[in-house]
Amino acid sequence: MVLEAARAEFAARGYEKASMRAIGRAAGVDAALLHHYFGTKDRLFLAALEFPVDPRQVIEVAIAGDRARIGERVAGFVLTLWEQPGVLDRLLALIRAAATTEQVAQLMREFATEVLVGRIAAELDLEQPELRTELMISQVIGLAMARYVIGVEPLASATREELLPLLAPTFQRYLAGE
Amino acid sequence: MVLEAARAEFAARGYEKASMRAIGRAAGVDAALLHHYFGTKDRLFLAALEFPVDPRQVIEVAIAGDRARIGERVAGFVLTLWEQPGVLDRLLALIRAAATTEQVAQLMREFATEVLVGRIAAELDLEQPELRTELMISQVIGLAMARYVIGVEPLASATREELLPLLAPTFQRYLAGE
Repeated sequence: MVLEAARAEFAARGYEKASMRAIGRAAGVDAALLHHYFGTKDRLFLAALEFPVDPRQVIEVAIAGDRARIGERVAGFVLTLWEQPGVLDRLLALIRAAATTEQVAQLMREFATEVLVGRIAAELDLEQPELRTELMISQVIGLAMARYVIGVEPLASATREELLPLLAPTFQRYLAGE
Repeated sequence: MVLEAARAEFAARGYEKASMRAIGRAAGVDAALLHHYFGTKDRLFLAALEFPVDPRQVIEVAIAGDRARIGERVAGFVLTLWEQPGVLDRLLALIRAAATTEQVAQLMREFATEVLVGRIAAELDLEQPELRTELMISQVIGLAMARYVIGVEPLASATREELLPLLAPTFQRYLAGE
């Protein structure tokens, strides 16, 4: 009921303008209770769109540890993530929805810009940090499309061990300029 | 009429099993005439699916010239291509169709495997040439999704001149291992 109300509010008003108060009112739930259970608007958004994982985990993974191995950590995180049950189906559903429904594309765009890209970019000590972060994300999306949606071989059946050494340097260069 | 018949035959039998003879028969066109106008099956396929560009141009671009600048040539080709009228709309329609219709995804998979990947891979003097070629293609698809479908900023408005130096090294490493 809360998630339905949240989806309706996000769809009707966009990520930026949607309010926790309006969602609570539509769901007949006290705003304080809503904050108690979902915390912030971005958490409620992730739950409403059934994100298979909190994308902000990528930020924590990327920020933690040695900057010289940031590409390896991000590639490893992404490749491991997809192998977890339920994650891939939900991720592909999101990509398909964004590809076909402008409303979903707009929500993803607003959320990515306000929550994801800004936070990663703030940690990068390079010029054009937002552009670099988005190129990293574009490689993740394209990989999901080619590997799982189109399913072209040998990429579709390639193991984590085969892909990691090819992908890590791409992420390393986008995120650390090396 | 010919293109309709071709779409029906490719959809019904897949890229590999579709025959020029069957398409000609369905369209009431002599097979010799069909060959005269469309040449080979892959050309007819590109016309039937309304590919905005012959993807084999990428092969020619990639193969011609100095291997040390292959990444720059491929990145330049892709970024220029999208700026040409009509190309982007048709490319996005293909990506959307592949993302939502398994039949289209299967056609793209078969075509990519038999026509595109093999020919590029044969020119690469590296281990795992198919995998590397497909990673290059995955970056192109993901870039189209992030830049034009989701439209996240600043990537969506970034100029060719801003993107070229960030993308060229990615393609260079995938295709030349540097």
